[in-house]
Amino acid sequence: MDTAEFRRLWDELAPIGRRPGGGYLRYSWTPADLACRDWFRAQAESRALRYETDRNGNLYAWWDPEPEPGEAAESGAILTGSHFDSVPHGGAYDGPLGIVSAFLAVDELRAAGAEPKRPIAIAAFTEEEGGRFGVPCLGSRLMAGVVTPERARSLTDPDGTTLAEAMRAAGADPSTLGPDPERLASVHAFVELHIEQGRALDGGDAPVGVASAIWPHGRWRLTFTGAADHAGTTRLPDRRDPMLAFAFAVLAARKEARLAGGLATIGRVEAEPNATNAIAAKVTAWLDARAPDEAVLNEILSGFESKVSERAERDGTGFTIEPESETPVVDFDADLRDRIAELLGGAPILPTGAGHDAGVLASHVPTAMLFVRNPTGVSHAPGEGASDEDCAAGVAALAAVLRDLAC
Amino acid sequence: MDTAEFRRLWDELAPIGRRPGGGYLRYSWTPADLACRDWFRAQAESRALRYETDRNGNLYAWWDPEPEPGEAAESGAILTGSHFDSVPHGGAYDGPLGIVSAFLAVDELRAAGAEPKRPIAIAAFTEEEGGRFGVPCLGSRLMAGVVTPERARSLTDPDGTTLAEAMRAAGADPSTLGPDPERLASVHAFVELHIEQGRALDGGDAPVGVASAIWPHGRWRLTFTGAADHAGTTRLPDRRDPMLAFAFAVLAARKEARLAGGLATIGRVEAEPNATNAIAAKVTAWLDARAPDEAVLNEILSGFESKVSERAERDGTGFTIEPESETPVVDFDADLRDRIAELLGGAPILPTGAGHDAGVLASHVPTAMLFVRNPTGVSHAPGEGASDEDCAAGVAALAAVLRDLAC
Repeated sequence: MDTAEFRRLWDELAPIGRRPGGGYLRYSWTPADLACRDWFRAQAESRALRYETDRNGNLYAWWDPEPEPGEAAESGAILTGSHFDSVPHGGAYDGPLGIVSAFLAVDELRAAGAEPKRPIAIAAFTEEEGGRFGVPCLGSRLMAGVVTPERARSLTDPDGTTLAEAMRAAGADPSTLGPDPERLASVHAFVELHIEQGRALDGGDAPVGVASAIWPHGRWRLTFTGAADHAGTTRLPDRRDPMLAFAFAVLAARKEARLAGGLATIGRVEAEPNATNAIAAKVTAWLDARAPDEAVLNEILSGFESKVSERAERDGTGFTIEPESETPVVDFDADLRDRIAELLGGAPILPTGAGHDAGVLASHVPTAMLFVRNPTGVSHAPGEGASDEDCAAGVAALAAVLRDLAC
Repeated sequence: MDTAEFRRLWDELAPIGRRPGGGYLRYSWTPADLACRDWFRAQAESRALRYETDRNGNLYAWWDPEPEPGEAAESGAILTGSHFDSVPHGGAYDGPLGIVSAFLAVDELRAAGAEPKRPIAIAAFTEEEGGRFGVPCLGSRLMAGVVTPERARSLTDPDGTTLAEAMRAAGADPSTLGPDPERLASVHAFVELHIEQGRALDGGDAPVGVASAIWPHGRWRLTFTGAADHAGTTRLPDRRDPMLAFAFAVLAARKEARLAGGLATIGRVEAEPNATNAIAAKVTAWLDARAPDEAVLNEILSGFESKVSERAERDGTGFTIEPESETPVVDFDADLRDRIAELLGGAPILPTGAGHDAGVLASHVPTAMLFVRNPTGVSHAPGEGASDEDCAAGVAALAAVLRDLAC
């Protein structure tokens, strides 16, 4: 695999949705997302791969086997790919690297004269980040029946646009959303290549690692309520200021995570009326929490909830916490993991704290993930990245896996 | 003064800019503000008061003296009035009560056959709350030359619209903005009637109080900077999360104010990229701080700044604090205050933590404020209010003051 080949295809896709400052806005069903979809279709067509969209807006490019007369193709497809959408002002690699690498792996297999015995499909899943409608892995969750189509259609973006409205505005049909068990049953294995999110591979010899598990994780909506009042005239004892319990919650999340050995983050907050000279009436925030196992995650959450509730009560303000999404631990298929690690010459095996479509599909089909080394460890920000050499090594690794599983 | 008369005029104005939930959006130069301005002009014209706008967008309704032949009018006007604009989702009374009461006080004087010996003018000042462009008392500060027209024109609202653009869109001319020393010199005294912001009058016998002073106060922009990263994969020690120092600042502001005996509030916050699964790159917030005197205010600010800086440094994040507006203590004219308190039969004299156009004009002309009792003490929120009886008493008090000073 030539790094120049990687760079050429990468540079084609990279400008779409890139903003001044280098971050990406590729919210699903926006013009940037539609441009990515057009690019995907063009890539499929230029390679004579069969282009398909499923009932949930996920895209596929199929390399179908062409058995010799008298032979039969093996049933069950090898699925690979990832997603185009980004978190707000996220980096270039999270998602797109898996799609670009999949097209290049097909090129590499073809250049080497390989022929698939079972179908190979490259997928682009919709709204993996939940950056627009708040539910991550929405495309794969709909497919798996984990999110109902009714709930999905009524999800709203920050402007109040529903997913149904956004899909219709983009020329897509929200009425077809829903579980797709036949499609799941037709998949023999799913392998998602992804930029590493962390620095476990940095400093080692291997440019590519294999995932062991995804930490259990979730997001919770935190609502702090009080009473709006004049910041310049309301005596401190007369106040019911919800900003105080919110501030306490930010620090409590960090402390509970540190003590228990997990991660907890509050990165999103909205205050009302959000005026300099008015005490807030309401503060809404979102907690992201993850841990190596469910027990640690529960320890973080229960400590957080009891301490924040106590503080809010002391302030005379209200506090509620509601789950928006919760994902149990995902252990990837052990046989597939070990087979891939061996195939790649003893690739490192590492867990991740991040959710992925692979985590959703792992409950239904044997699933594996490849991680390409990210020297900065930065993720969800413009600083994330990998060298062209490591990306090319990722393509070669994915090609070897596809050849092993499908050819 | 009949409470029904108060209620009739009050109900005319009250629907303009009122939102579901009872709060008001009357940002300056928006359609709601323009509707208030039309209402003002109609009130002036229906009373044969001379309508005028000044170079800074402030409105006036003039009751000019008509001296008998051979007599001369006294020079120097008695100015009264307040403002229409609201904080986001603020209450109905803060501002408008002073304008409605002024028109009704003129009615009352005329009904009693009073004739002014010097001009009486009712004023409606622009952008008193700073709710749209961030600088409170903008109309009076421009008049007094405290804010330059260049700075004013380039102030932006949260959508990025400048004051100059907003004025032009509303059919007003931003090129005339600037100091108006002749107008200030033509004012003999200014008396602003205002809803009480606090509960000092509650439980007493007097429905109307007189202001002694405005606490020194200001607003400061707080900028917390860090590094955006993935909330699910970045180890706690590797993070530079600015939300932590922001949270610490919210709690520190409260604590410093409590210890020093002042007020400090953070009610406005904006995080970037503001995504649930991304560590914030930047948090911007605004501190509102007030105190009985400058020494206490400085004590709060220096304690706040040193403790927050220390915390940010410990987190490896950045912190800056910049003043957006600072107002020194305002002691209202003692002679005018005592004369009014005596005229009203020994009205209570009380300080306030809130800024007002009266506070700006007090450096230039003898200025006084009347406060109408607010039983809830709520301010800048829909719960603020006064009984119709107390509002009518406020009109009667203002009429007595205008008669004493002008007739």
